[in-house]
Amino acid sequence: MGPNRLMMRGLADRMPASLSWVFFLRSIAAFEGITSMSELCDFGLIGLAVMGENLALNVESRGYRVAVFNRTTEKVDELIAGRAKGKNFLGCHSIVEMVKNLKRPRLVMMLVKAGPAVDDLIEQLLPHLEPGDILVDGGNTHYVDTERRTQYVESKGLLFVGSGVSGGEEGALKGPSLMPGGSKAAWETIKPIFQSIAAKVGPNNDIPCCEWVGPRGAGHYVKMVHNGIEYGDMQLICEAYFLLKEAAGLSNDELYDVFADWNLGELQSYLIEISRDIFSVKDDAGGDGYLVDKILDVAGAKGTGKWMSQLALDLGVPSTLVTTAVYARCLAAMKQARVRASKVLPGPAASHNPAFDGAVKQLVSDRKQFIEAVRQALYASKICSYAQGFVQLQEASREHQWGLNYGDCALLWRGGCIIRAQFLDRIKEAFDAQPDLENLLLFPYFTQAIEKAQASWRAVVMAASHLGLPVPAFSTALGYYDSYRLARLPSNLLQAQRDYFGAHTYQRVDRDGVFHSEWLDLRKQPKA
Amino acid sequence: MGPNRLMMRGLADRMPASLSWVFFLRSIAAFEGITSMSELCDFGLIGLAVMGENLALNVESRGYRVAVFNRTTEKVDELIAGRAKGKNFLGCHSIVEMVKNLKRPRLVMMLVKAGPAVDDLIEQLLPHLEPGDILVDGGNTHYVDTERRTQYVESKGLLFVGSGVSGGEEGALKGPSLMPGGSKAAWETIKPIFQSIAAKVGPNNDIPCCEWVGPRGAGHYVKMVHNGIEYGDMQLICEAYFLLKEAAGLSNDELYDVFADWNLGELQSYLIEISRDIFSVKDDAGGDGYLVDKILDVAGAKGTGKWMSQLALDLGVPSTLVTTAVYARCLAAMKQARVRASKVLPGPAASHNPAFDGAVKQLVSDRKQFIEAVRQALYASKICSYAQGFVQLQEASREHQWGLNYGDCALLWRGGCIIRAQFLDRIKEAFDAQPDLENLLLFPYFTQAIEKAQASWRAVVMAASHLGLPVPAFSTALGYYDSYRLARLPSNLLQAQRDYFGAHTYQRVDRDGVFHSEWLDLRKQPKA
Repeated sequence: MGPNRLMMRGLADRMPASLSWVFFLRSIAAFEGITSMSELCDFGLIGLAVMGENLALNVESRGYRVAVFNRTTEKVDELIAGRAKGKNFLGCHSIVEMVKNLKRPRLVMMLVKAGPAVDDLIEQLLPHLEPGDILVDGGNTHYVDTERRTQYVESKGLLFVGSGVSGGEEGALKGPSLMPGGSKAAWETIKPIFQSIAAKVGPNNDIPCCEWVGPRGAGHYVKMVHNGIEYGDMQLICEAYFLLKEAAGLSNDELYDVFADWNLGELQSYLIEISRDIFSVKDDAGGDGYLVDKILDVAGAKGTGKWMSQLALDLGVPSTLVTTAVYARCLAAMKQARVRASKVLPGPAASHNPAFDGAVKQLVSDRKQFIEAVRQALYASKICSYAQGFVQLQEASREHQWGLNYGDCALLWRGGCIIRAQFLDRIKEAFDAQPDLENLLLFPYFTQAIEKAQASWRAVVMAASHLGLPVPAFSTALGYYDSYRLARLPSNLLQAQRDYFGAHTYQRVDRDGVFHSEWLDLRKQPKA
Repeated sequence: MGPNRLMMRGLADRMPASLSWVFFLRSIAAFEGITSMSELCDFGLIGLAVMGENLALNVESRGYRVAVFNRTTEKVDELIAGRAKGKNFLGCHSIVEMVKNLKRPRLVMMLVKAGPAVDDLIEQLLPHLEPGDILVDGGNTHYVDTERRTQYVESKGLLFVGSGVSGGEEGALKGPSLMPGGSKAAWETIKPIFQSIAAKVGPNNDIPCCEWVGPRGAGHYVKMVHNGIEYGDMQLICEAYFLLKEAAGLSNDELYDVFADWNLGELQSYLIEISRDIFSVKDDAGGDGYLVDKILDVAGAKGTGKWMSQLALDLGVPSTLVTTAVYARCLAAMKQARVRASKVLPGPAASHNPAFDGAVKQLVSDRKQFIEAVRQALYASKICSYAQGFVQLQEASREHQWGLNYGDCALLWRGGCIIRAQFLDRIKEAFDAQPDLENLLLFPYFTQAIEKAQASWRAVVMAASHLGLPVPAFSTALGYYDSYRLARLPSNLLQAQRDYFGAHTYQRVDRDGVFHSEWLDLRKQPKA
């Protein structure tokens, strides 16, 4: 069964009545193999930067005919004469040309720079499209824009999809993780194409990392949380690396072995795997030693971690790991300021806390024990990070009425993308077993994992504090765990302060209601 | 010399030419005491909630005639018949009535709910005002709105001021901290009134906590950072309280004595003072014991800490303390979720880290030593928090070209407001000595304070980690200090990861340029 027939299955009965005749004609064309229709393309792609080009090649490789267009049309000709040579492509030099050559309902995917360029492109496309046609934005778009665009495009009678696309260049070509959301009516049309190009996971490698996420901006929101979790993972790995290198003195060769070992267990994931690889790479610029040591400790960022943090703050959910990771990148970026500060600000003196110094030395001196303690700290922190990400998804889904399926989200990140962590299978199991699970930490598998890890986790945070090696993500995760598991926190004092200076009122532990006290009158009067 | 004359000093020569004749007439009126003019008011105030009412009373008490208006006009009558009885007030039942009764240039201050209500009020006022008149927004407004409104109102030929007002009800009545920014031409007119009503500090109690902050939204931005620092201070105090109560078992009476003692030293501040008072207050609802123990540990928030965090993330400055404090309030607010989690998630077992346990016991068992260690941790963390706040001000000032004077900002928070910390004098000294100081931590006074505190600070963070008592703000501050003072952080690995999976490129430590490596080809090939 070819892709055209795949696309038709069960579709006609889901289409709006106004579209049914279009579909009927198309069905006939497909079944009868009418030649005049066979030149039309299944998929239009606009934006031929490396992601777009690779995605177009991926789609074509699955048996679809692909029309491509790029504002700078030389890129179109280059692709057609180069990587697309002899393949089932149609190079277009205008939007009109592309639109004319697409099967209906038309499916046009945009892979252009997120922001106003997407709005411009939509305005250019709309006059040439007709009801039922589908626009897909595969860029790194803020979900608020996708909420707005879905409503706008739907108001014109068309369908809009905002799809997270993760996996970088390689993923785009060989199998990305795809997180589509928007106009649900589009799903039956795009599903066969999207699921065929997506990465596959599962024991038989046949579960696509692509499912319908939800209405409006849901797909881009889930992609943003994916990226935020990626920020957390990367920062946690850096902290583990820092401790192993600075506290235990591991060489790059030894780090390679440690990460290779870790990648066989609970921590197995794409980022652990590439970190392992990185430790094996020698300087490729003619110098001695390893490349990782020659790289400046200045981290870049493209903003999705920041978005996730800002939205967590708006929702009032404590996504502390991603925010800590973003701030850690800010601090890393202040390289020159840090170099100046390093000449002024003193570090710790071991002699000042001798008892702690003894405990730290005892921990670090047994290398094998220390490496395992760091692994446990990383694992426990990582569980907290994912737990926070899913809590944010839950809260966003509630607020926007997206009806997200959290187990599906975990599965979408299982392959193709940057996370690809083995323990996402455990997360899927958790949400399959308890769709309303309020926090992953409460699922027995993770509760037990933390229970097992926590002594090491605490020891590692203590050692780092003593040694002056910052582990903000390990610490933040521990603080989150300890705050979350305590029925009683000291915020009673904070609320008393707020009522004292601003009459903000308070609640009581022993009765319902809202109270205010005249603290100035009630307090012990200070001595004159 | 009455207020009218005070207001005139040096004003005429700063006015736009178009206003000079208005001013000339007014000058004559003031000098000659023309009776028909004497009924006009110096100050108009709109919005008679408790802050507005108290501020109006404060202004009147300094010798000014005050016109008041409120949308619900019963509030006007109540005030005039009540607290304002026999005082120099004019109660107005419409905006037109107020405007007609104000001296020119008219000065109208709005104290209404931040948001669209301010825009509505501006639209209602504009048709009745004339060039040179001044609108002041004293609400808790996001600076972006003030940026926009200043430009809008100036485009109509009028002047606009967005002023931070801090100090709560009591401050409004007796002397708030005022942080005005916007149309600079308004300053000479509002200065005498604002400085007369503001709190006073200094050895002779004659330095007003009110100075011109800068153009457009600068005043509201500085107020926001004030509030963010307040968030940090409150969270830090809660953590100190938590440790003293839970780890050292101090009673409320003992906490009173500790905070009374702390308030005599480096930590002297309004929030330490009211915390001291709070520990002395018995339950006023008929129960036994102390009120603070009866208050539910659920913290509220009004959003300025969130704004500051979101803007820090936009600026790329690591204001980690305020964000941690905001997230701590989110966690506190999840009371029922925490109660559920407390029944599932295990805490630490002392026996698992015996060497650390010994060190912690040794630290905590000497109560006096532990109390002093907690004080040092609080002080060092507080210095980091203020350092971050000022870095954010610097970066915002650069971005918006506000030309902020940081020493003045410190002085504005010295009295009237919620911060009122003694060590703001040290901050003012620091910026007076080095106006371009890039971080307060680098000023010798603070460098030395941290050096003295750091062993205790680290010990307290370690003890809290071991005991499972979350001290997210102490930890975050320590992580910030350690990250900032290290010339080399582990972000080289992070940047290698980004280049590996996304070709994001990297810089090198040993040469200029931007590099990309083919990691997949260079890595040690994994065994088959």
